[in-house]
Amino acid sequence: MRYKLTIAYDGSAFHGWQEQTAEDGAPLRTVQGVVRSTLQQVIGQPLTLIGASRTDTGVHAVGQVAHFDADLRIPLDRLPMAINSRLPNDVEIREAVIVDNDFDAISGAKEKQYRYRIWNSTHRPLALRHTVYHCWLNLDLDRMRDAAGRLIGTHDFESFANTAHGRTTTVRTITDCRVEPGDDPELHVIVAGTGFLYNMVRIIVGTLIEVGRGHWEPDHVDALLAEPDRAKAGPTIEPGGLCLEWIRYD
Amino acid sequence: MRYKLTIAYDGSAFHGWQEQTAEDGAPLRTVQGVVRSTLQQVIGQPLTLIGASRTDTGVHAVGQVAHFDADLRIPLDRLPMAINSRLPNDVEIREAVIVDNDFDAISGAKEKQYRYRIWNSTHRPLALRHTVYHCWLNLDLDRMRDAAGRLIGTHDFESFANTAHGRTTTVRTITDCRVEPGDDPELHVIVAGTGFLYNMVRIIVGTLIEVGRGHWEPDHVDALLAEPDRAKAGPTIEPGGLCLEWIRYD
Repeated sequence: MRYKLTIAYDGSAFHGWQEQTAEDGAPLRTVQGVVRSTLQQVIGQPLTLIGASRTDTGVHAVGQVAHFDADLRIPLDRLPMAINSRLPNDVEIREAVIVDNDFDAISGAKEKQYRYRIWNSTHRPLALRHTVYHCWLNLDLDRMRDAAGRLIGTHDFESFANTAHGRTTTVRTITDCRVEPGDDPELHVIVAGTGFLYNMVRIIVGTLIEVGRGHWEPDHVDALLAEPDRAKAGPTIEPGGLCLEWIRYD
Repeated sequence: MRYKLTIAYDGSAFHGWQEQTAEDGAPLRTVQGVVRSTLQQVIGQPLTLIGASRTDTGVHAVGQVAHFDADLRIPLDRLPMAINSRLPNDVEIREAVIVDNDFDAISGAKEKQYRYRIWNSTHRPLALRHTVYHCWLNLDLDRMRDAAGRLIGTHDFESFANTAHGRTTTVRTITDCRVEPGDDPELHVIVAGTGFLYNMVRIIVGTLIEVGRGHWEPDHVDALLAEPDRAKAGPTIEPGGLCLEWIRYD
């Protein structure tokens, strides 16, 4: 039987999603590692856990998706609670469903949405310091919205990719890109698309912040799409403000 | 010159307000210690920092008040920024004002308000896990409000004090005690008073939760006030949900 899990986590104490070891060979604390080892305890058999999105160190999720194969004797509706009761309190299984055997968390993902939280204030976020990006400079919402709208569509996003992206094509489709006020003093950048390049959302947000603070005009985005040049886009903004919200499957 | 500071902090990485050392004599990380040593760097002279409220390990504040004496050459309006630029990002000076030489942060405090955040959901608070108390059981807001209102006034609060309170009288005056919905799924208990006993707010909240989940009737509070008995009140609820909101001076 193949199972699909929806997973939420606070990424601040994880070395990202993917299992990995430190230079000395010791395992690092990762979401995949923690969830897989807990699942193995509950199920009583080794398994492979395939996650849809390799979120970086410090990035959060409310809608990460993963799949695994197992023969479970525990009823499906009790599975999330059985796992959660053994998971640490910075990660949670939100849902478990049975899927077809050809379901694949990675290749089946049709669309993903991310949210980036900017704390736009001279005051500090304090308890939210691992959840939002603190921007002291006053950001102009209208300018950011203007720039964000220009990213929607199918474009070559090479300017918005880490140069180590390792992909043969940098053409991607952004289905939604907007900036909304959150709870005061937050601004949220929401980006949805059918696929993303390495660090793409963080570079998009870094660029929108440069526009919002008046460093660039909104049409600078047009130039970045027309003539790919990573050096002319904004910085890769820090990971703590980023959250993977949902992944859509057919 | 005497200065009054208003200080905000996330208490989750502090051993409370008051400077103290571990059993091996090493200094523990405390808010008083971090702010005092930073102030000394900025001002260039040793000083004593007197805080109004000795918040416990894990308790937060947005309106802690402290005073110190110094001869500053730095303009008053630039003092908060000068200190903040050297403070770690889990503590912030919100305001600095000059006060009369007889101002005392402790004895001058006329009223204080605390807020306790309860996360009332089967889902986990994740990023807010050090900021809210997670209560899985469904809480009845009306029952909690009924019980909270009975605490307002001048009463013997011995039932609501840690038995090591060390005070000659346990009579205190609560000026406000109410329960309000916060952002979904939060419930907030707001307690204001002219003075508090050791752990008093946390025991009040622990008692209101017992009423809210149906373990006790709201009038159990009347019995606790009429016949002091710490053992018959609720547990001392965990510190992470508690925040010192403001302190009023004349």
